[in-house]
Amino acid sequence: MEFSSKLLENAVNEMSQLPGIGKRTALRLVLHMLRQPKAQTTALSQALMNMRTSIKFCKSCNNISDVELCEICANPNRDEGVICVVEDIRDVMAIENTSSFKGLYHVLGGKISPIDGIGPHDLNIVPLVEKVKSGTVKEIIFALSSTMEGDTTNFYIFKQIQEYNITTSTIARGISVGDELEYTDEITLGRSILNRVPFESSLKL
Amino acid sequence: MEFSSKLLENAVNEMSQLPGIGKRTALRLVLHMLRQPKAQTTALSQALMNMRTSIKFCKSCNNISDVELCEICANPNRDEGVICVVEDIRDVMAIENTSSFKGLYHVLGGKISPIDGIGPHDLNIVPLVEKVKSGTVKEIIFALSSTMEGDTTNFYIFKQIQEYNITTSTIARGISVGDELEYTDEITLGRSILNRVPFESSLKL
Repeated sequence: MEFSSKLLENAVNEMSQLPGIGKRTALRLVLHMLRQPKAQTTALSQALMNMRTSIKFCKSCNNISDVELCEICANPNRDEGVICVVEDIRDVMAIENTSSFKGLYHVLGGKISPIDGIGPHDLNIVPLVEKVKSGTVKEIIFALSSTMEGDTTNFYIFKQIQEYNITTSTIARGISVGDELEYTDEITLGRSILNRVPFESSLKL
Repeated sequence: MEFSSKLLENAVNEMSQLPGIGKRTALRLVLHMLRQPKAQTTALSQALMNMRTSIKFCKSCNNISDVELCEICANPNRDEGVICVVEDIRDVMAIENTSSFKGLYHVLGGKISPIDGIGPHDLNIVPLVEKVKSGTVKEIIFALSSTMEGDTTNFYIFKQIQEYNITTSTIARGISVGDELEYTDEITLGRSILNRVPFESSLKL
């Protein structure tokens, strides 16, 4: 692409660094900004810079937060004996939306993935083991996605905390509510039969 | 969506003002920025602000430019007697890519579209008529997209410059190179037969 303006070219190049945004999309977005009031671009730039410079990660759970200790960790009504291990803030938001979990979270910041060059030491695993060591934790719930990387990460952490004799669980795999049985893949269906639950407990939610 | 951080929420809200970017995509982009070095976010913010504050529109053709008179208008080798009327900078870039046009452009900044509240006075039409009046222009080529709005805009401009006795043309509508005849819509096929060209001239490109 040949641009008639260096300023436009720079803006397009920077925008197209973002994942899933190519040069054409970047140009469309940048031209949209030019048609909008200047204040809107200022607000966007400011918001991005403020976020990037001032955002903190909770010192306990590693979730994104504006303060040292995030709202969830600071809430005395939450059960600090149960810790749900998740990949990132989006999973915390998704689980919080269900209102079905009253414990604390531990955000790993990713999954073990040798193919992407992410090993256990790139993740926030040591502080989790420390928490378990300290003796306040009664149960660890693994809530990583059910992929090769997720399962590897679960297993790695499990091995580290095994000796401390606490309960560990993973979120249930099974058929989504509303899904047709016949279109479900066989691994999920097989697991959902092996891990069947008492009928009365299925009436709860 | 409930966010654990106001800074994150602001950044996501500002990003999702852009066309085609919803809250989820905005969150994905913003989290990506958090994982990248701070310099990258700084570069993006700076580039957007610089563009929005310093970019100019060429005083002759209204194309985006870093200087008063854009490169194309300032080039003495281009024929100022032929003016190609286009909607925006993307069309200029597309036509420049073909290297088949040696005249100047006139960027309207949109098309007449009552449904979007865009009338002739919101577009850069008056300066075009002035150029024609001044007597230097020999031909006007209409290169707007072949839609209701494009045709309306063409016709509106045509009415304004009709009296000055210059050549007007539109880019040829026809079957795209490589397309199958049988799948072409009948309007395009009909036009391409009515506006057939001498066989020798089809050998040129």
